[in-house]
Amino acid sequence: MSAASSLKAQIAREIGTPALVVDLDVVERNIARAQRLCEAVGVANRPHIKTHKSTRLMQMQLAAGAKGITCQKLGEAEVMAEGGATDIFISYNLLGEEKMARLARLMQEAEVIVAADNPLVVSELAKAAAMAGRDLAVRIECDTGRKRAGVETPAEAIALARIIAATPGLTLAGLMVYPPEDGADVTNAFVAEVRKALAAEGITFDDLSSGGTPNLLNLGSLKGQTEHRAGTSIFNDRMMMAAGFASVEDCALTVYTTVVSRGGPERGILDAGSKTLTTETGWDLKGHGLILEHPEAVVARFAEEHGILDLSRCNHRPVVGEVVRVIPNHICPVVNVVGELVYIRGDAIIGTEDVAARGKLR
Amino acid sequence: MSAASSLKAQIAREIGTPALVVDLDVVERNIARAQRLCEAVGVANRPHIKTHKSTRLMQMQLAAGAKGITCQKLGEAEVMAEGGATDIFISYNLLGEEKMARLARLMQEAEVIVAADNPLVVSELAKAAAMAGRDLAVRIECDTGRKRAGVETPAEAIALARIIAATPGLTLAGLMVYPPEDGADVTNAFVAEVRKALAAEGITFDDLSSGGTPNLLNLGSLKGQTEHRAGTSIFNDRMMMAAGFASVEDCALTVYTTVVSRGGPERGILDAGSKTLTTETGWDLKGHGLILEHPEAVVARFAEEHGILDLSRCNHRPVVGEVVRVIPNHICPVVNVVGELVYIRGDAIIGTEDVAARGKLR
Repeated sequence: MSAASSLKAQIAREIGTPALVVDLDVVERNIARAQRLCEAVGVANRPHIKTHKSTRLMQMQLAAGAKGITCQKLGEAEVMAEGGATDIFISYNLLGEEKMARLARLMQEAEVIVAADNPLVVSELAKAAAMAGRDLAVRIECDTGRKRAGVETPAEAIALARIIAATPGLTLAGLMVYPPEDGADVTNAFVAEVRKALAAEGITFDDLSSGGTPNLLNLGSLKGQTEHRAGTSIFNDRMMMAAGFASVEDCALTVYTTVVSRGGPERGILDAGSKTLTTETGWDLKGHGLILEHPEAVVARFAEEHGILDLSRCNHRPVVGEVVRVIPNHICPVVNVVGELVYIRGDAIIGTEDVAARGKLR
Repeated sequence: MSAASSLKAQIAREIGTPALVVDLDVVERNIARAQRLCEAVGVANRPHIKTHKSTRLMQMQLAAGAKGITCQKLGEAEVMAEGGATDIFISYNLLGEEKMARLARLMQEAEVIVAADNPLVVSELAKAAAMAGRDLAVRIECDTGRKRAGVETPAEAIALARIIAATPGLTLAGLMVYPPEDGADVTNAFVAEVRKALAAEGITFDDLSSGGTPNLLNLGSLKGQTEHRAGTSIFNDRMMMAAGFASVEDCALTVYTTVVSRGGPERGILDAGSKTLTTETGWDLKGHGLILEHPEAVVARFAEEHGILDLSRCNHRPVVGEVVRVIPNHICPVVNVVGELVYIRGDAIIGTEDVAARGKLR
């Protein structure tokens, strides 16, 4: 039996399927790579923990040289502070009484920076700063092409910067961007216009935080970038393979799953459905994951606990009882829904972790 | 302020958004409706707990007259047995040493019936029965049109029934089907053929278990149906509205979420993204949910923590800070990923529950 087969048998026997299996050797290589790419251009590495949600993996990132971490939700930040993070950027608009009270508490435990893209959020953040009795650093989220959150024009960024600079308890730390992979020119123009207009009024800032795993390959293209936030690069997935960032060998997390039924001759059923692999199709990828043992099989559709395979293109078809490994299209929601990681090195099981920030929706 | 506005303010203040808010009055009405529909045709009600994953709500279903429950995963069944379930059907192929040991333990705590659609699963189940030292009831899963798991032909069902009947420790309890909404004729013919062929050999069975919330409206169309498994009917969702099973007033669970950014003039951002509402688009529904306060707004796309709204068709557009209620397209994966339910009655908060079977993938 090969080492891979033997490990699969052991995981099926001792842990059961489906299981999220993380190869720590690959994780370490991936962490080192992101760190090296940032250091090569003198940009601080501030990995986004939304991908792994794990205090253990966060600690590995910090040990490898990360300056701090990025969180999307306050609840993630609270968990990571408890796990030892002391420098946290929450790259998300926070609003409301309940969140401001929690933010003020978090500010006692860690250095916190928060994003904002509108005046209401800024006024709320001022309340948290007042409760905490210390200044809060704010970055303006700027939309330079992705059309999600963020001010859309330099004029809006400038107006918001004035408000932040004039608000007691808040400091203007800088700008946060998340450019599309071809968005460096647009972003550079946006940032330059904001910087110039504010400088004329005596308002300056240091931070230019950018993000995204594929953008790790574009580092150096943003003028004045001070830090980078990448999440997926710690595990990689089928989308990162499609983006040209990763190969199969760089995918640290695979879902071990058992073929529990064959249905018709051209159909197979995995015990991992949409409640495990999630329905994120990921750009134009065909099917919902790559099966390492049967790459020509298509994870064609899902029921909640069924991954329904189209085997029509397979010469070699899986049998009932066979354990296979799947690289998901998008790894982040998979970890969020499952939460239990099985750690391996090579062909040895090292342990498991229930990731503490799983499903932190607030 | 209206009662709805006042409750929204209270939830935002005390619990925060996003939050999964369940109106227990509506839940009780929905539970009673499914029970009544089953009783009207003399079919046992065996609700599927995969939707709510909650021991509290399971207990309400049993108190309303449900004969037992249905689970899709062994881990769900374990949690429900701990919560008081004594009659459990696991409507899923179980395989492997680790699962058989757990199944044998579960058989000490509850009456258990398990599905199977192939000989390997049957031989595994026999091991569990031997370990438990008692007989295990098995139902043959039959595919009568949905093309997921299940034997595809009466001949396969007959062959598998012979194996089960001949296997020490197993009893052939009957058949399990999950027909498409227009699948009664095909299913009746399938079942009749199996029943007749087996009777000629002296093999008989009692159970014909069917399922699905929309099929609650077709009860009576399957000859010899003994029980029904419906999951979604306890909460309902946008898909059940599209199926003609439910109206807005029948949707017991809404996601309370805050508009945290407006982006461009025709764009809004909810603090509930794909990690809360999930990407299940649900048939051909437009957008990822129905916003009660802005039904003409489209939840057009997601980032993980952003619900990105297309407001181009809205005369009245939401403002930053506004709390809105969203009926998700498909409620089951939402509860599975979030797991915390906030219970209300009318406009009063009753309490919260971390549903114990959330994310039970094994």
